[in-house]
Amino acid sequence: MADRKITTENAPSGVTAAAGFMAGAAMAAIKKADKRDVTVIYSTVPASAAGVFTLNKVKAAPVLLSIGRLASGKAQAVVVNSGNANACNGEQGMKDALAMAAEAAAVLNIPEEMVLVASTGVIGKKMPMDKVLPGVREAAGVVSPGGGSLAAQAIMTTDTYPKETQVRLQLGGKTVTIGGMAKGSGMIHPNMATLLGFITTDAAISDACLKQALRYAVERSFNMITVDGDTSTNDMVVIMANGMAGNEMIKDDSEDFRSFREALAQVCDKLAIDIARDGEGATKLIEVEVRNAGTERDARLAAKAVAGSSLVKAAIFGNDANWGRVICAAGYSGADFDPAKVDIFLGNVQVAKDGGSLEFSEELALKALKGSTVKIMLDFKSGPFSATAWGCDLSYDYIKINADYRT
Amino acid sequence: MADRKITTENAPSGVTAAAGFMAGAAMAAIKKADKRDVTVIYSTVPASAAGVFTLNKVKAAPVLLSIGRLASGKAQAVVVNSGNANACNGEQGMKDALAMAAEAAAVLNIPEEMVLVASTGVIGKKMPMDKVLPGVREAAGVVSPGGGSLAAQAIMTTDTYPKETQVRLQLGGKTVTIGGMAKGSGMIHPNMATLLGFITTDAAISDACLKQALRYAVERSFNMITVDGDTSTNDMVVIMANGMAGNEMIKDDSEDFRSFREALAQVCDKLAIDIARDGEGATKLIEVEVRNAGTERDARLAAKAVAGSSLVKAAIFGNDANWGRVICAAGYSGADFDPAKVDIFLGNVQVAKDGGSLEFSEELALKALKGSTVKIMLDFKSGPFSATAWGCDLSYDYIKINADYRT
Repeated sequence: MADRKITTENAPSGVTAAAGFMAGAAMAAIKKADKRDVTVIYSTVPASAAGVFTLNKVKAAPVLLSIGRLASGKAQAVVVNSGNANACNGEQGMKDALAMAAEAAAVLNIPEEMVLVASTGVIGKKMPMDKVLPGVREAAGVVSPGGGSLAAQAIMTTDTYPKETQVRLQLGGKTVTIGGMAKGSGMIHPNMATLLGFITTDAAISDACLKQALRYAVERSFNMITVDGDTSTNDMVVIMANGMAGNEMIKDDSEDFRSFREALAQVCDKLAIDIARDGEGATKLIEVEVRNAGTERDARLAAKAVAGSSLVKAAIFGNDANWGRVICAAGYSGADFDPAKVDIFLGNVQVAKDGGSLEFSEELALKALKGSTVKIMLDFKSGPFSATAWGCDLSYDYIKINADYRT
Repeated sequence: MADRKITTENAPSGVTAAAGFMAGAAMAAIKKADKRDVTVIYSTVPASAAGVFTLNKVKAAPVLLSIGRLASGKAQAVVVNSGNANACNGEQGMKDALAMAAEAAAVLNIPEEMVLVASTGVIGKKMPMDKVLPGVREAAGVVSPGGGSLAAQAIMTTDTYPKETQVRLQLGGKTVTIGGMAKGSGMIHPNMATLLGFITTDAAISDACLKQALRYAVERSFNMITVDGDTSTNDMVVIMANGMAGNEMIKDDSEDFRSFREALAQVCDKLAIDIARDGEGATKLIEVEVRNAGTERDARLAAKAVAGSSLVKAAIFGNDANWGRVICAAGYSGADFDPAKVDIFLGNVQVAKDGGSLEFSEELALKALKGSTVKIMLDFKSGPFSATAWGCDLSYDYIKINADYRT
């Protein structure tokens, strides 16, 4: 795929890489001074839009607002703040989310129903609207085609670096761009959108195809990462497609649709892997691949359980080739497989064969474990299906970040 | 219940508290020298027996052996070793488990089919049978009525203290004793037996009633604790009832049955809570109660998710009254409830009302958080069902114990 039409660039433009998209950011001091904490993403024309949202029973006000507005399949802007999740704030929370959207709509001169809202930060604290609204006003007022990378900074919480990417592909002689940004770090666990992700594209694509492509891409990327097993109240991935690339409208399961879908999956993969690598306290990315499973579901369940096991994560942090914890996690994942057939590899080193131990070079295994990306592969030898999940190791710093010690 | 018939004593007798039970322990140097690592529990007469076992797809050889032998509903001895799980050892693993049982049977002069086996320790390492068999021989050779507390020490792995208890109750003028021991510490997560637990009683009770009482008690105790979300390959809880108390045989859902069941639940509760409190690296016990849920399942799911959330556990370690993480965990638990109705208490301090924030005394909340037991209560205000789960905080030491750092 990548060698045919798509090239990944390093230009720091993210959500403003595609034609007709702008972004602006502001410092509203919602939680901290001197940090950009509000951003507005804007399409100069109305766009098709789709989203996936947290399955948590407790949904933050901006999640409920955005779910409702996306029923139309259209949007033109997204307001995002970090520093406060606006979750568990009752009716006031919804009023505040509506006010944020209205403020951006007024500045951008678009209908407020075309504005989505996303928030991330602490749960159960009232939004400091005296700070938030001026921030939204400022961010909306400074939207520009070069604003993508500041936007990616503004959505960060405990992330240690901004996460953005873009790809370009040719569709019927037209260049189509898909760009995106995301934030993650803690409270990350597969089950629908598990973070904030914003993707923009100038592709012309029907609402239905856009929704389908987003679900396909999220299922293989954001839904396959885990940091700590906690699914947040606020997570969402939203995509807007404004058609400005001038390609022939994608409206069915055509070759163009499949090209677009794969390019979108590439964007989501990049952002998701960045989130896993930058998990709270992480020192390494863990990539778990399950091969030759009987069903795709079995492959996914097992890969996610291994990537999410506290004991596996702690072992990887400690450079311990503890394959017993790996097979144990696969065993309780709910996946169906024959334990007596499982081979396990750490990087290129086979560490278990037919579900049992094997002589292997501790030196080579240690080398595989000390890399910045640790690959674990389980071969179930029972079917044609495979899946990959991503996580990170569990270090002292995860505790430090989340314990916020009080005496 | 407790005030009517049952008294809990502090005598350190555990599995040998009931009439006709003996235990012996030995140092076999399976993993470490100078630590008791093999024990044999023995009933002087054949006993009714029942067990619950790990649901992990990957089951250790001793688990498979014991499941098979308990089909008869009878047993007379259990051989237990720590230091090696005898999991993922293929056919040799089963041969070794059978040999351990045969060795004990030979010394005790009982049929080998009446001997169960349990193991705990590292996965995927061959059993050092040249050390194990002499250890079994010695342990079986020194069984005595006073051997309970040494047995409780012999099953420990990363546990910091032995866990044993016993209760007595009167049934039809006869004193019945139920005693037990358990080990836990890591790889502890609800889903069937999640640890090693051994319970003995001199009650006369039918196989069917014993099985039913054990399931009842385990469901409310061992299945409601979580340390790290990892369900082991080896866990089991086994009970033997030898009838030596001379009570009239319990064989249906009588008052005696219910008294026995509650007393058994009390033994299991005590052992389960001890395991949660002694979780790897734990500095505190976390007790999570969900009240007034719409169904018992909802109450259990929510209580377990809160007790198992890494973010809640890290917050409790850090004395942080972060109720947002509590409601978030309930939200992704799969439990059905109305977030807008939830009240949350930390100890006696209400920290959230109707799913939202509330003014509360930070000082009193901090006091509740600094105790050795932190109680979290969620009131769903939507039905008559309640459930309690137990866990522990997540500290730097959990990482230290499990990372086993290699450079």
